[in-house]
Amino acid sequence: MANFQKLTSRAEDYSKWYNELVVKADLAEQSAVRGCMVIKPYGYAIWEKIQAELDRRFKETGHVNAYFPLLIPKSFLSREAEHVEGFAKECAVVTHHRLKNDPDGKGVIVDPDAKLEEELIIRPTSETIIWSTYKNWISSYRDLPILCNQWANVMRWEMRTRLFLRTAEFLWQEGHTAHATKEEAIAEAKKMLNVYAEFAENVMAIPVLKGVKSPNERFAGALDTYCIEAMMQDGKALQAGTSHFLGQNFAKSFDVQFLSKENKYEYVWATSWGVSTRLMGALIMTHSDDNGLVLPPHLAPIQVVIVPIFKKHDDLDRLLVKLDPLAEALKALGIRVKVDTSDKQTPGYKFADYELKGVPVRLAMGGRDLENNTIEIARRDTLTKETVSFDGIVEHVAQMLEQIQQNIYQKALNFRLENTREVNSYEEFKEEIKKGGFLLCHWDGTVETEEKIKEETKATIRCIPSRENIIAKGNNTIFEEGKCMVTGKPSKQRVVFAIAY
Amino acid sequence: MANFQKLTSRAEDYSKWYNELVVKADLAEQSAVRGCMVIKPYGYAIWEKIQAELDRRFKETGHVNAYFPLLIPKSFLSREAEHVEGFAKECAVVTHHRLKNDPDGKGVIVDPDAKLEEELIIRPTSETIIWSTYKNWISSYRDLPILCNQWANVMRWEMRTRLFLRTAEFLWQEGHTAHATKEEAIAEAKKMLNVYAEFAENVMAIPVLKGVKSPNERFAGALDTYCIEAMMQDGKALQAGTSHFLGQNFAKSFDVQFLSKENKYEYVWATSWGVSTRLMGALIMTHSDDNGLVLPPHLAPIQVVIVPIFKKHDDLDRLLVKLDPLAEALKALGIRVKVDTSDKQTPGYKFADYELKGVPVRLAMGGRDLENNTIEIARRDTLTKETVSFDGIVEHVAQMLEQIQQNIYQKALNFRLENTREVNSYEEFKEEIKKGGFLLCHWDGTVETEEKIKEETKATIRCIPSRENIIAKGNNTIFEEGKCMVTGKPSKQRVVFAIAY
Repeated sequence: MANFQKLTSRAEDYSKWYNELVVKADLAEQSAVRGCMVIKPYGYAIWEKIQAELDRRFKETGHVNAYFPLLIPKSFLSREAEHVEGFAKECAVVTHHRLKNDPDGKGVIVDPDAKLEEELIIRPTSETIIWSTYKNWISSYRDLPILCNQWANVMRWEMRTRLFLRTAEFLWQEGHTAHATKEEAIAEAKKMLNVYAEFAENVMAIPVLKGVKSPNERFAGALDTYCIEAMMQDGKALQAGTSHFLGQNFAKSFDVQFLSKENKYEYVWATSWGVSTRLMGALIMTHSDDNGLVLPPHLAPIQVVIVPIFKKHDDLDRLLVKLDPLAEALKALGIRVKVDTSDKQTPGYKFADYELKGVPVRLAMGGRDLENNTIEIARRDTLTKETVSFDGIVEHVAQMLEQIQQNIYQKALNFRLENTREVNSYEEFKEEIKKGGFLLCHWDGTVETEEKIKEETKATIRCIPSRENIIAKGNNTIFEEGKCMVTGKPSKQRVVFAIAY
Repeated sequence: MANFQKLTSRAEDYSKWYNELVVKADLAEQSAVRGCMVIKPYGYAIWEKIQAELDRRFKETGHVNAYFPLLIPKSFLSREAEHVEGFAKECAVVTHHRLKNDPDGKGVIVDPDAKLEEELIIRPTSETIIWSTYKNWISSYRDLPILCNQWANVMRWEMRTRLFLRTAEFLWQEGHTAHATKEEAIAEAKKMLNVYAEFAENVMAIPVLKGVKSPNERFAGALDTYCIEAMMQDGKALQAGTSHFLGQNFAKSFDVQFLSKENKYEYVWATSWGVSTRLMGALIMTHSDDNGLVLPPHLAPIQVVIVPIFKKHDDLDRLLVKLDPLAEALKALGIRVKVDTSDKQTPGYKFADYELKGVPVRLAMGGRDLENNTIEIARRDTLTKETVSFDGIVEHVAQMLEQIQQNIYQKALNFRLENTREVNSYEEFKEEIKKGGFLLCHWDGTVETEEKIKEETKATIRCIPSRENIIAKGNNTIFEEGKCMVTGKPSKQRVVFAIAY
């Protein structure tokens, strides 16, 4: 049963609004296991659409899926120095393989005789187990490239968790590719970033900034991390996807060499790239409002709900004579439609529920509409409704879905542009960062300066943006040289600072 | 690179043939983690088709997907007495949540300060975590039924593992449903068994016997386990899917009650049902031969491979003028086609490779075919080939795919019927069971007799078959009353004994 106690408003408490919305809209909930979530059917249906759209794009770009083990020998992690540094502190460790009856009680205890010789780690990411496998798959340049993706669960033992945004277990995809040359690997990492960006913008309707991470924010073990960054409605940044150029780090750690065309042994070049159920958090926080979810039509499990308004079953039957063929006509266009004929809830209850669930278009028809050959059509994004002629309603709905998709993207882009500004002194920065948004600043390129800023303001460099983005409104000086706002040392271009999720 | 050392033949060593085939056909391999497999891209592509076909059927029967945590608190397992008895011995146990640098060495060690208060188990199956969740979802009869499915990895620490058939980690789906009445739950369990059977027969081309398990072979915690059983080419049985009527066991263990229409609190009725990557083993062992895989067209990642025979690139170009449009015409019918224009391998190598990989139909065209307007078509299941007119080849291929699908099913069914026989005395049974196959025998219905037979012959009751099956050829006495072959006590019908995987 949906709970129609009013949502906390975003203005009142953004964080509380998010937490309530995730639960009330039946997307996910906390489980009995600390930090692990249950993804409920409605939330999972959205994730399935995300998966399908991404999977199609991966296959169109030549990738295949495979599956690698959940557990990783502890020693594998240590092979790549930065990698283990990055993940050791949040590893779930399997130490035993059997339980036995508690001789002193009713329950079960861990059987001390079933201790593993070497502990196993639940994968926080799979570079190590995959590169230990690739060693057997690669001997010659003929075996390259390898373009594998995996859909899997991973585990990172986070101390402070939030549904979708930061959970101990999460679902994701991780691509792991192997190449004969550095250039090819870099091109692959960039290609997949573009796949993510296109997907985020066209399917999720989330505008993203493309760029590269500063050394401090790189993936543990990568030479370069490309990323897409989105702005949430509270002005905070959310990293929506990353694609890593791993150089030869993992090939060297797992001794993966190939015989080149020139008959020389060389280490293989690698990339990895991933997006996770965190995208669900980005989706919610980009579009939704104080009435509930707002879903982009391309991802909505129900795109159109049709609600007949009736008191007696005879009335319903008369309405369905028109509404059932309408639903069929919409389905024939590939539109996901639900006709809600339940008599357990009132129309008012249904309207509020579908609003909370973010169904993009709602159609309602009652006795008077039937007489007048009209139907009421309501848009979730603008919360507007109008009564229109029943004739031509199919085309009207199809167009409205496309309009909603465009409109929520444009709205989010405008919001980002309005909340992106150039800042030229550190004094100004310290004030401005409190207002949220993306701040475009000159930075001297050092880890020290970045860390000082983070310590003093909690802001981090979200990315060093590439030129292909629309970053700020009007004339701006993003790609001009300047001086670091903190140290005054020279800077080649501005970078994007923000407080991040 | 494929390895064309000849496969061990099935007659020589069936078990070795299977193990070699799984690896040589690039389906799966052992990983660095004991008992855990890597599912390689070609194997995973088959699994993805299995998933898609099943998922569609689950949704058509009203089910939705969701996701529940990987980890289960140890105490949850103990709540259902038989359940913990069934799974405690094979549980992977997480005891710590952090690693740290080894003060004495280079690697990492488990941080003793990061011991969990309560150990967590990697799910061997999810009844307990799901029913602890359903408790929050169910309060009234209006909340029922719940019809959820989950696609997930699970872990059972098996001591002796074999790729796909028995691995410590495997992939599966597990349906978990909650109902207001016993009758509805039983109907659901039976419905899903029928979904599995229809899928096994029509998609995998594997004939299955439907029935119910004897108490000894039931799922730990179930009141009844419905199953489908298949016969492998060595005459052994393989359980291909199970659907459990769980009664109110888990509802009672997790105190899940609902307010009925009659305003009374009642415990909820449950089912669970699952199939796993074990189906890959069934698929391989049902159809394949000494030359490699034989795949049913409905699951083959490549249904038709087109191999142009050429020496010079000019020759290839001339062939492609006809072959590219042919490939397009096949794709337009929804057929999965690959045109192999590589010049790295000889046609002979390619033919052997696609044979090993079980591609159902192979088309080959060389210069002479081009002159004669002919093409060579080869069938993987019968290993026959013929040269036919190029005209009408599209329809020819489409029909052949359907014929192959039917033919391999019929072949497997005939094999099962030929190797299913009635046995009337325990003396005869002990001889006959050595020859393999399904033995139809009278049994007195007791666990003692079943265990005695298992101890003395390794055979188990695979199922108590239902009447809707074709079980044996000709007239038979399966559903007539008789006397237990061991004890002479009365028996209502014959049951199916076999040695099982």
